[in-house]
Amino acid sequence: MPFQLKLDKSVKKASSNIVLALDLPSHQPHSLLPRSIQILEETHPYICAVKINRQLVLPLCLFKEIQRILKSAQDLGLPTIMDCKINDVGHTNRIIAEYYYKAGFDALTANPFVGWNEGLKPVFEVAKKMDRGVILLVYMSHKAAEEGYGQTVQNPETGQLRPQYVTFAEKALSWNADGVVVGATYPKKIRIVHSILQEKVPIYSPGVGNQGGDIKAATKAGTRYLIVGRTITLSVNPNETAKRVRDIATQSLR
Amino acid sequence: MPFQLKLDKSVKKASSNIVLALDLPSHQPHSLLPRSIQILEETHPYICAVKINRQLVLPLCLFKEIQRILKSAQDLGLPTIMDCKINDVGHTNRIIAEYYYKAGFDALTANPFVGWNEGLKPVFEVAKKMDRGVILLVYMSHKAAEEGYGQTVQNPETGQLRPQYVTFAEKALSWNADGVVVGATYPKKIRIVHSILQEKVPIYSPGVGNQGGDIKAATKAGTRYLIVGRTITLSVNPNETAKRVRDIATQSLR
Repeated sequence: MPFQLKLDKSVKKASSNIVLALDLPSHQPHSLLPRSIQILEETHPYICAVKINRQLVLPLCLFKEIQRILKSAQDLGLPTIMDCKINDVGHTNRIIAEYYYKAGFDALTANPFVGWNEGLKPVFEVAKKMDRGVILLVYMSHKAAEEGYGQTVQNPETGQLRPQYVTFAEKALSWNADGVVVGATYPKKIRIVHSILQEKVPIYSPGVGNQGGDIKAATKAGTRYLIVGRTITLSVNPNETAKRVRDIATQSLR
Repeated sequence: MPFQLKLDKSVKKASSNIVLALDLPSHQPHSLLPRSIQILEETHPYICAVKINRQLVLPLCLFKEIQRILKSAQDLGLPTIMDCKINDVGHTNRIIAEYYYKAGFDALTANPFVGWNEGLKPVFEVAKKMDRGVILLVYMSHKAAEEGYGQTVQNPETGQLRPQYVTFAEKALSWNADGVVVGATYPKKIRIVHSILQEKVPIYSPGVGNQGGDIKAATKAGTRYLIVGRTITLSVNPNETAKRVRDIATQSLR
């Protein structure tokens, strides 16, 4: 099943647009696997997908423990996203994408800054062949995002000056990306990106909670999926917190 | 021992400025570990360091098989670089860097596009604390490098238009990076970057051989270390090929 279809199904089932970011602290490596699976089981009724970061892939092994987490997500009907932010040269990008998709991830993230030819083209080719998704970074949630994603760049053909993230949003359209990431901490940027993408490419927004992003502001601006990590994973009761976050997000959609 | 000192020592010992990129094909996962160690043993007299990519870290486990490769490199007196091209938000970048350094890598690569505050600052902090290196991507070796690294950007303070890679080279200076990457496929860019960095921050150049970069042109333009992968790793006799590449590079330095 293609990534977007799988995600739509999951959104309906949980009445939720919350993507859980499994960001677990690293000081207890042996508890990472059981804790990850426990959090998935506790939160699955209120989330639509799971995003995994290198915080888990580095201490755990991709084709061992990570596959057990992916199997657990699959059994719970949750699509999985690998937040690997691919940004290497083409032949390496292709191999990275193949490994993550083979391990079972339904989608991955990539940085459009590397460009198309010998850059992300091989990633989109592998994704198409394996029926998986590619989500592009358009504006990240941290303070220095302004330095790169927010810088003003010149169009090499027209000479026109435009924000970098606008050029990235246009690449997402022309490359047929399955989604874009815009930090919930920047609702004005979400609005501009949404005006370019309309409903053709959905916006994923991390940075809610610990990083200061506001669910309502992001949703009103055009975010379709909210990526929530530490607010849920580090809470005393992830089940209750996931439900609470899901409810706030659902109310914001009205 | 700090990364640069370790590297200088190794350069003298092997009379070589060749960094071996352990890029092994992925179709035989079980042979990756023994083959990696075998290539290290065959090539170590002619190389000054080893660079490992996600092509090895994903199929092998960081704290298991990869550590055996790092141990082997260490026993041969070779410094190791993890080419992870860090480009996430700060708290994740910090954890990624900690994992790679804890596993034993002497240096890692990072993308200056993410900026400083809540971006790469935590990576430099961890590196300083653990006495390791950070190498920044300034201009990559692939065709689409022009789209990002080669684009024209506006200085937010002066309004001046400049190439992106020039701004990255300046960040390398002000952030006290231990090296920068500029593709051997772009000798003119190497020359410009070298004119900014002088001998303060060394240039590493990948893209020699399979990607079309020329050792002599890159060296004349200012490259200090040549990153060579498939030309050596996929050759019939890696030992002989490493020696031949080392000799060409040494001659170019004269």
